Amino acid sequence: MPHPTDSRPIVLLTDFGHIDAFVGILKGVILSIHPKARMVDLCHEVAPQDIGHGAHLLDISLEYFPKGSIFCAVVDPGVGSSRRAVLVETTDYFLVGPDNGVLWPAAGRNRIRRIIHLTRSRYFLPQVSTTFHGRDIFGPVAAHLSAGIDPGAFGPQVSCLTPFAFPEPKPIAGGMILTVRHIDTFGNIGLNLTREQFRQFADKGFCMRVNQVDITGHYHSYAAAPEKIPFVMTDSAGFMEIAVKNGDAASRLHVKKNDPVVLTARGEKNDDGGL
Amino acid sequence: MPHPTDSRPIVLLTDFGHIDAFVGILKGVILSIHPKARMVDLCHEVAPQDIGHGAHLLDISLEYFPKGSIFCAVVDPGVGSSRRAVLVETTDYFLVGPDNGVLWPAAGRNRIRRIIHLTRSRYFLPQVSTTFHGRDIFGPVAAHLSAGIDPGAFGPQVSCLTPFAFPEPKPIAGGMILTVRHIDTFGNIGLNLTREQFRQFADKGFCMRVNQVDITGHYHSYAAAPEKIPFVMTDSAGFMEIAVKNGDAASRLHVKKNDPVVLTARGEKNDDGGL
Amino acid sequence: MPHPTDSRPIVLLTDFGHIDAFVGILKGVILSIHPKARMVDLCHEVAPQDIGHGAHLLDISLEYFPKGSIFCAVVDPGVGSSRRAVLVETTDYFLVGPDNGVLWPAAGRNRIRRIIHLTRSRYFLPQVSTTFHGRDIFGPVAAHLSAGIDPGAFGPQVSCLTPFAFPEPKPIAGGMILTVRHIDTFGNIGLNLTREQFRQFADKGFCMRVNQVDITGHYHSYAAAPEKIPFVMTDSAGFMEIAVKNGDAASRLHVKKNDPVVLTARGEKNDDGGL
Repeated sequence: MPHPTDSRPIVLLTDFGHIDAFVGILKGVILSIHPKARMVDLCHEVAPQDIGHGAHLLDISLEYFPKGSIFCAVVDPGVGSSRRAVLVETTDYFLVGPDNGVLWPAAGRNRIRRIIHLTRSRYFLPQVSTTFHGRDIFGPVAAHLSAGIDPGAFGPQVSCLTPFAFPEPKPIAGGMILTVRHIDTFGNIGLNLTREQFRQFADKGFCMRVNQVDITGHYHSYAAAPEKIPFVMTDSAGFMEIAVKNGDAASRLHVKKNDPVVLTARGEKNDDGGL
Repeated sequence: MPHPTDSRPIVLLTDFGHIDAFVGILKGVILSIHPKARMVDLCHEVAPQDIGHGAHLLDISLEYFPKGSIFCAVVDPGVGSSRRAVLVETTDYFLVGPDNGVLWPAAGRNRIRRIIHLTRSRYFLPQVSTTFHGRDIFGPVAAHLSAGIDPGAFGPQVSCLTPFAFPEPKPIAGGMILTVRHIDTFGNIGLNLTREQFRQFADKGFCMRVNQVDITGHYHSYAAAPEKIPFVMTDSAGFMEIAVKNGDAASRLHVKKNDPVVLTARGEKNDDGGL
Repeated sequence: MPHPTDSRPIVLLTDFGHIDAFVGILKGVILSIHPKARMVDLCHEVAPQDIGHGAHLLDISLEYFPKGSIFCAVVDPGVGSSRRAVLVETTDYFLVGPDNGVLWPAAGRNRIRRIIHLTRSRYFLPQVSTTFHGRDIFGPVAAHLSAGIDPGAFGPQVSCLTPFAFPEPKPIAGGMILTVRHIDTFGNIGLNLTREQFRQFADKGFCMRVNQVDITGHYHSYAAAPEKIPFVMTDSAGFMEIAVKNGDAASRLHVKKNDPVVLTARGEKNDDGGL
């Protein structure tokens, strides 16, 4: 790895939330091991134990961080079970976390160099609990790694990583059934559909039906859309979303995570504000 | 600017919330450009797209930060439209954000040296989206600025900034109609009335009526007030607020943001705990 | 204190929440005094003015931070009253905050070296408000301390600290009545019962009754427990909690903070997954 360890921030992604001291304790442990560690919060409001949510946030965020960054991703419903703790070294990044799928999509963005099974307890806290491996294992390993310990020191190399598959759009006659992947802070409705997957529909005209509402507008920015009418656009990560200009689409359409959305071709180009 | 760039923290104010990775990605982008950047979170829970809320928080916070600080304020309902992206250099600070009013009150606290229209795309991310200029423009510019790039490098100087006017108290016979500016974490009800504007009422006796409740107590601290009875005091930023000792005034009075409050003179000095 | 001041992070614990700029302003003040200060957020979602909650979080977190850390704990319902502002120097840490009990349990974890009454206003902000001593007193003192000022400079030594007693389990015939101390992000129900206090019940068989539901399962990890059935386990801080595997125990059992839980001995060992 050509990057000096000084430029390796530890990027934290968890479902620990903000009402407890879990995130603070994790940081205390890291600083106790590596007092000069630089830590950055990616997100701590992953839906509790929702591996897919964590995997998605890690996946879309990874490449905005400096090469050499150490991601410590703790969404860990299997803590205390036999699921493995791993460190994945890719061409550009390090990923530390439970081997339950949360690291999979992000790991696939680069070439994987090696996967280390974290077994060397000298790099853990002296007491390892059955409930908080962020504090006891993942944080300490990330801290030692940021301090310059070689990945190979943390345990034996293993050959595979637990995969995670995001739900794909389901083909139906003349279209597909999508799933609401998440609702963001602004009430925008994130879909499991990439810009590329949407292109054929955008080109030929489409209708998106959600909760008995038909959406046919397609704009390239919130600003270009008319007020109050739900429309489709590309979000900042390259996925399609349903939005309402200066409004909250999810509240307006009574949509929640995992709801289905039916996308069909219309054979007639949509109003798109001259996209 | 006499301050060495090392002492210039980047202070982040957004409406991105904490449930998504937006803030984390913004920080990743900044660190990718300037690995030694120091970042401080001012607040990320500005009400979605509420320029006034963001402008107020920036305005009351500015002077508590070190001279030379770079404020990156992203409350940006017009993202993707033709609204300008700007950098304002004042005597003491740098303000980076959309030119939609959010920077206006804070910019007015110092003498403005120059306003730069951010046009030099070499300082942006290579791909600029239509939805996330915090990541693509404002974060990168703040990072380059913190790394020592001269403000003039980011684009041409322009002569004016979009103003923002907070709603002023409306005079009525014998008093004024106020507006609830915001409800804080503790349920304190923030009013659009400064200590100075309130002084004449405090001196001569006043009544504040909100949701059919008359408030006449005026104390200089929560501790000095009686339990359970709503009273008026000065908040930590110099504005008047309605509070309940050890309680939540907004819940108790069923008050929400933008509600009206009628302030009238009574001609009789209020109970004020010997203020 | 043998630790160089450079390795002294300032650890922030408050009830300021995230919707306001209070935490950001506190950090701005600290950086204005000590531009190289390292700050870590322990938690800012202490329940408003809940000294016991703050005291508990500080108590269980303290020892995960580096020796020499400066804890700035601001849960301060008595701000503006005559309650003292103090700095406690223990063998390993510094604690700065109001002398209302919030520092007590944490201070008792080490030997107390000295307690300083914060009176030297040259180390405060020039204007001290009656509502925000985090900004005006505690933050500034923590910043000066992290910059190397000797604790004795902040005021005279005093001999005692305001104590705080967590509610203890109440003995009844054949058992005890517990109290729900808090509900965490995952919905786990935290009890005022330590692992040690629980041991005799675990050994001989027990029943925990909460809201008419009897809980008899006892597991050493979420992973070892069966789905959907509430069970008892030890949390990451050494206290007993009621949990539901991959679920939200508090919602399922309709339990909230301060609810009673009755623990009785059964005289028959429980299902415990071979603990």
